[in-house]
Amino acid sequence: MLNRLFSKLEGYYEEMVSIRRYMHQHPELSFKEYETAKFIQSYYEKLSIKVKGNIGGNGVVAKVYGKKPGKTVALRADFDALPIQDEKDVPYKSMVPGVMHACGHDGHTATLLVLAKALNELHDELEGTYVFIHQHAEEYAPGGAAPMIEDGCLDGVDVIFGTHLWASEPTGTIQYRTGPIMAAADRFEIEIQGKGGHGAQPHKTKDAIVTASQLVLNLQQIVSRKVNPVESAVVTVASFTAENAFNVIADKAKLIGTVRTFNEDVRQYIEEEMERIIHGTCYTADSTYKYDFVRGYPAVVNHAKETEFLINCAKDIAEVKTIEETEPQMGGEDFAYYLQKVPGTFFYTGAKPVGDNEGFPHHHPKFDIDEKAMLIAAKTLGTAAIRIHKE
Amino acid sequence: MLNRLFSKLEGYYEEMVSIRRYMHQHPELSFKEYETAKFIQSYYEKLSIKVKGNIGGNGVVAKVYGKKPGKTVALRADFDALPIQDEKDVPYKSMVPGVMHACGHDGHTATLLVLAKALNELHDELEGTYVFIHQHAEEYAPGGAAPMIEDGCLDGVDVIFGTHLWASEPTGTIQYRTGPIMAAADRFEIEIQGKGGHGAQPHKTKDAIVTASQLVLNLQQIVSRKVNPVESAVVTVASFTAENAFNVIADKAKLIGTVRTFNEDVRQYIEEEMERIIHGTCYTADSTYKYDFVRGYPAVVNHAKETEFLINCAKDIAEVKTIEETEPQMGGEDFAYYLQKVPGTFFYTGAKPVGDNEGFPHHHPKFDIDEKAMLIAAKTLGTAAIRIHKE
Amino acid sequence: MLNRLFSKLEGYYEEMVSIRRYMHQHPELSFKEYETAKFIQSYYEKLSIKVKGNIGGNGVVAKVYGKKPGKTVALRADFDALPIQDEKDVPYKSMVPGVMHACGHDGHTATLLVLAKALNELHDELEGTYVFIHQHAEEYAPGGAAPMIEDGCLDGVDVIFGTHLWASEPTGTIQYRTGPIMAAADRFEIEIQGKGGHGAQPHKTKDAIVTASQLVLNLQQIVSRKVNPVESAVVTVASFTAENAFNVIADKAKLIGTVRTFNEDVRQYIEEEMERIIHGTCYTADSTYKYDFVRGYPAVVNHAKETEFLINCAKDIAEVKTIEETEPQMGGEDFAYYLQKVPGTFFYTGAKPVGDNEGFPHHHPKFDIDEKAMLIAAKTLGTAAIRIHKE
Amino acid sequence: MLNRLFSKLEGYYEEMVSIRRYMHQHPELSFKEYETAKFIQSYYEKLSIKVKGNIGGNGVVAKVYGKKPGKTVALRADFDALPIQDEKDVPYKSMVPGVMHACGHDGHTATLLVLAKALNELHDELEGTYVFIHQHAEEYAPGGAAPMIEDGCLDGVDVIFGTHLWASEPTGTIQYRTGPIMAAADRFEIEIQGKGGHGAQPHKTKDAIVTASQLVLNLQQIVSRKVNPVESAVVTVASFTAENAFNVIADKAKLIGTVRTFNEDVRQYIEEEMERIIHGTCYTADSTYKYDFVRGYPAVVNHAKETEFLINCAKDIAEVKTIEETEPQMGGEDFAYYLQKVPGTFFYTGAKPVGDNEGFPHHHPKFDIDEKAMLIAAKTLGTAAIRIHKE
Repeated sequence: MLNRLFSKLEGYYEEMVSIRRYMHQHPELSFKEYETAKFIQSYYEKLSIKVKGNIGGNGVVAKVYGKKPGKTVALRADFDALPIQDEKDVPYKSMVPGVMHACGHDGHTATLLVLAKALNELHDELEGTYVFIHQHAEEYAPGGAAPMIEDGCLDGVDVIFGTHLWASEPTGTIQYRTGPIMAAADRFEIEIQGKGGHGAQPHKTKDAIVTASQLVLNLQQIVSRKVNPVESAVVTVASFTAENAFNVIADKAKLIGTVRTFNEDVRQYIEEEMERIIHGTCYTADSTYKYDFVRGYPAVVNHAKETEFLINCAKDIAEVKTIEETEPQMGGEDFAYYLQKVPGTFFYTGAKPVGDNEGFPHHHPKFDIDEKAMLIAAKTLGTAAIRIHKE
Repeated sequence: MLNRLFSKLEGYYEEMVSIRRYMHQHPELSFKEYETAKFIQSYYEKLSIKVKGNIGGNGVVAKVYGKKPGKTVALRADFDALPIQDEKDVPYKSMVPGVMHACGHDGHTATLLVLAKALNELHDELEGTYVFIHQHAEEYAPGGAAPMIEDGCLDGVDVIFGTHLWASEPTGTIQYRTGPIMAAADRFEIEIQGKGGHGAQPHKTKDAIVTASQLVLNLQQIVSRKVNPVESAVVTVASFTAENAFNVIADKAKLIGTVRTFNEDVRQYIEEEMERIIHGTCYTADSTYKYDFVRGYPAVVNHAKETEFLINCAKDIAEVKTIEETEPQMGGEDFAYYLQKVPGTFFYTGAKPVGDNEGFPHHHPKFDIDEKAMLIAAKTLGTAAIRIHKE
Repeated sequence: MLNRLFSKLEGYYEEMVSIRRYMHQHPELSFKEYETAKFIQSYYEKLSIKVKGNIGGNGVVAKVYGKKPGKTVALRADFDALPIQDEKDVPYKSMVPGVMHACGHDGHTATLLVLAKALNELHDELEGTYVFIHQHAEEYAPGGAAPMIEDGCLDGVDVIFGTHLWASEPTGTIQYRTGPIMAAADRFEIEIQGKGGHGAQPHKTKDAIVTASQLVLNLQQIVSRKVNPVESAVVTVASFTAENAFNVIADKAKLIGTVRTFNEDVRQYIEEEMERIIHGTCYTADSTYKYDFVRGYPAVVNHAKETEFLINCAKDIAEVKTIEETEPQMGGEDFAYYLQKVPGTFFYTGAKPVGDNEGFPHHHPKFDIDEKAMLIAAKTLGTAAIRIHKE
Repeated sequence: MLNRLFSKLEGYYEEMVSIRRYMHQHPELSFKEYETAKFIQSYYEKLSIKVKGNIGGNGVVAKVYGKKPGKTVALRADFDALPIQDEKDVPYKSMVPGVMHACGHDGHTATLLVLAKALNELHDELEGTYVFIHQHAEEYAPGGAAPMIEDGCLDGVDVIFGTHLWASEPTGTIQYRTGPIMAAADRFEIEIQGKGGHGAQPHKTKDAIVTASQLVLNLQQIVSRKVNPVESAVVTVASFTAENAFNVIADKAKLIGTVRTFNEDVRQYIEEEMERIIHGTCYTADSTYKYDFVRGYPAVVNHAKETEFLINCAKDIAEVKTIEETEPQMGGEDFAYYLQKVPGTFFYTGAKPVGDNEGFPHHHPKFDIDEKAMLIAAKTLGTAAIRIHKE
């Protein structure tokens, strides 16, 4: 049956490309993907596949039922775009000024739609149930995954798989990892309130720039001294603003930044330890502060069994030349929430373009993918979805 | 003769007040004091006192010649206003939105105009020559003093006196100091160029916020460890800007600040030592920098003999209740340039208002002066101008 | 045959214990293990096993030849003790004041001697060659492994196995890891040369304490900002000395510390980056420095195939209840050098004592092991040594 | 009468030199000046001048009474030596190993003894009372001045004068200053208690070296940002000790240092602000501390009237070529305590040696003075003591 699935997917490859390009031309920002959601929903409706929109926002969920009993397996693709101006010189360039599919979600969606169509055509032979989760708003915390789950998209689901087209790796590569593959990505804001004054009279002030500078350096010790060296963590102060005339002493300074971790205990510890350091630094300077730590997505933690299973599926796909363990990535993904509820795995499908648009990283104005990678993604996900019932 | 001068000044006190109030209602910003300059010039013209405008810009210089030979003594008043919104509730409130005489230069001008009128009436009895320097643009470096000097305003001048109405001291106080009374006020800009990147990937970047924070702290050592503790110096980083999204690592940070010193060697040393510290800090961080050190006014350094002379003049003015040495002020004044060319002294005339507008510091939106102080300033300057020929 | 090996080992268990206890009573410091070496050598001689002493120092190497062809497999045990006073209250307590087997090397040696005896008795049935490496001086860099290798102890060896009795894990546990399992452990010394002087005259000095303090903080950024967050690294300043009278400014400060890494590139990078940071910090302070970076043992990097093989061996030993992956340890081991030359793996054999001496960490004055763990270690190493010829 | 005093002093110059050289050969450490005290006391006894020993320790006080009524004027000389090995090559070199008059106190004593002898010979013509305070233990806080005062040495005294032979200024110079001329010199000790551990496991420790390094830098801000820039202050960390093996993390670090100030408010403020900074820094590091601030001598604050009077006295001494205001010195002197009780002034008498021993600073192993300066000191103090009754 896999062979038949594969020929169908190959036959629909042109359609996959044209869906992806259409979406590429019509990107929509996170939480505003109204037309994209309609497009996805009507694709399923035309095929008479059971579909529901407005799941937890703009989310769309379709289901295909096999004839035989089996597990309920979910496959997920996200479909929001980014506030970036497309600078590529291609016919399918974004038609929306300042908005662009610069992360490959268009490809994810095209892959999943066509895979659903092909599976649907084979439904007489299939075991179990196939849930196609089209998720909005992955790019912008708090994201679409959490509300879609709350709205029931995982109800009855036994296992989930998802992939990211990965432009830094050549087409033909599948990258996996058991355990954390993407980091928890949190955000913090710190406002130091000192006491301003004339630049020539420091003794009458509490210099917020000196205090905030000290704080930036003190925060370095979280990673260098406080976190177990075999754990990974990043504490970045991304923004430092205290703008004043040259002859003034700053009364206030604002720091904004991000914390990345793979381990929930480390995450919790850093949030608390930052408060200790801020408190102590401000005490030293007789100043006050406001501190907000806003949790973003948790770490994407792949399940061991499902990851091993996925590796074995990938081995049987002719186009896959390399299957390798990846280093964990410090970036975030709200696929994390699905894996907190059901077992599954998230993997990277190499999609590095060859030629002119080669080598631009995700979120770059010239970002593109090798569209052939969509076929590999569809085959890998399809294999997993069909074989999982035997596990 | 001093008695006659004093009665004249007392008789003209109402005029002094009305000039000051007229100017207070019609303030003009530094380098844009066109109407004020015309007003001053026409005051002298109406009195048939020899006057010249456009000296080094908007400067005005008038001269009164005594019958008998003697020294040439200059008296200086500045006449520019500040970009501050007047928030006082008085009939003579500024009529120009966002512009205000918040430093008392209106009072300086009224004092000098009326003193010139009174001296002119006594010119038959006077020795020497009297030069009235009405200077524009004291508030904004590079200031009006330097171009006025270049344009000849001090030619032939033997000695100069100037005063500042001083709202923090009660009327009846004269404050003097031999040597430095106001600081050199310089400005610096530092731009740190690191290498930006994703907030989760510090190892691919050179974090400009960390480097600039280190620099802020390293600069503290100039005052704490490098400058002789019996010298005064201030190094203030007034502005720190590196604004970015929360998940980015800063490629650039900009610091702006001021250096205050009384001693030219210390000033020079700090300019150079800052470069050493910036260079070393950036080397440590494998980053580059731009460093600009822009000299503002030098320190106002009073001459010993003229200061002692001024003290003795002040002792003979009935309204002067307190004559005291002041601590040097870290603020700047371009009177400094006159004292680099000719001997003289700059002193403070207490002018603290009593009642509603009491206690607002210079440059405050509610700043005001006790107008009676103008009479004391006029008498003190007048006494000095007449007696100096005997020294 | 494994069964026969296992019964032999069980039969010799009492001997194993008595050897271990004898050694425990007679510990010798690294590079001074003369009597211990003699003891080992004579053990083999009495059994007529081919043995050679003075290998690369006090090292001893014995060999047992199987009848059939096969691989040459090396097993290693270290035998030096530590400069610690034994504070246990047991009959086999150290008899040498201030010297103690506080790391379990006595157990390693007893295990290997008895395993060799048992294998020798089976030599008619064995394939390949068995090399028993008794290594001196593991505790003290540069260690005994490197000179023993140079002196030929690995000549002809195809594969090597080693274990450490591990008192923090219960008996019955085997811990493994592919890739780095123990860190590279390097040492640095930094001497800052400033310019001393009177404590009241900082401007005439270059304060070495301020400079060294800055350096301590600047070094934090290597781990917090420079090393890839998914790599592990530690930079510790362990010692800071600048002792002076209270009214002096320090002319000199000395820092000593350690760097721990798993990845050779990271290790190299840190050595160089430290120099950059020291150089820049001293430039900032107009001071000079001496910097020594002395490489200790490299990371112990286990080979993947041999590690997987070892896991499978352990599965077949009844006493082994738990086989688990361990986090890499930041401590060092010169087993690293063997694995740079030949494939193999180094694993931990749980040996946590139950009862009175429970829970004391390695290098503690009350450290002890559960002697039963020696039998498990012997069976695991023996299984690996016999089965490896089939791989 | 001054003329007669001067000729007597000139006549006794040889004696002055021989007393000074005898003392130079027989120096005694602070609080151990038993023989020196006896020597002084017996000098007065031989002249039948009223003298008392054991004043507040080893102090000696002699008195000469004038025939006529007048003020009671005290003159003070200190007589302790330093723990320094004399490295000069002169016949009068110290005969006590490791002890030396390296600060000129031998000269002070010789000056005062001979001046007392000369005044005593003139006592019939003198007004008032002359108190010769020979003070022990100036070099070592808490010093001899405070207990001597407590023991009554200033009882009835109206005014006091003291001088320091000053080897950095040429003979013939008198340096004076109204207000603070020497600083308050305090001592602090800070002990940071973190939590030690293995150098490879920072996350289990609280690294006392990092915390203490941060503290050293944080303390810089007291002078750079907290103290009024027109005040002088020094905060020096003189000693930083945390000595450990290379693979350990420090549990403890000790800082010792000094604070110098001229103004009692600033002194008090720094003591408190240091505690704030230590507290905040330790809070940041979750560590604890001990903090001791031990007050040394307060600032030597000269009285204005007596200083002006002294200047006028100095003008009439032929050998005095230069009378100049000095910068305040950050070093300490317990003459401070006398000036807290009675008016007076402390001045420097230039005593720079010419020739071989030129240019060695106070407390240097080759320190020496130009002995001629003793005559100038004696004449200046004598003039002040005689003329003060007319003021």
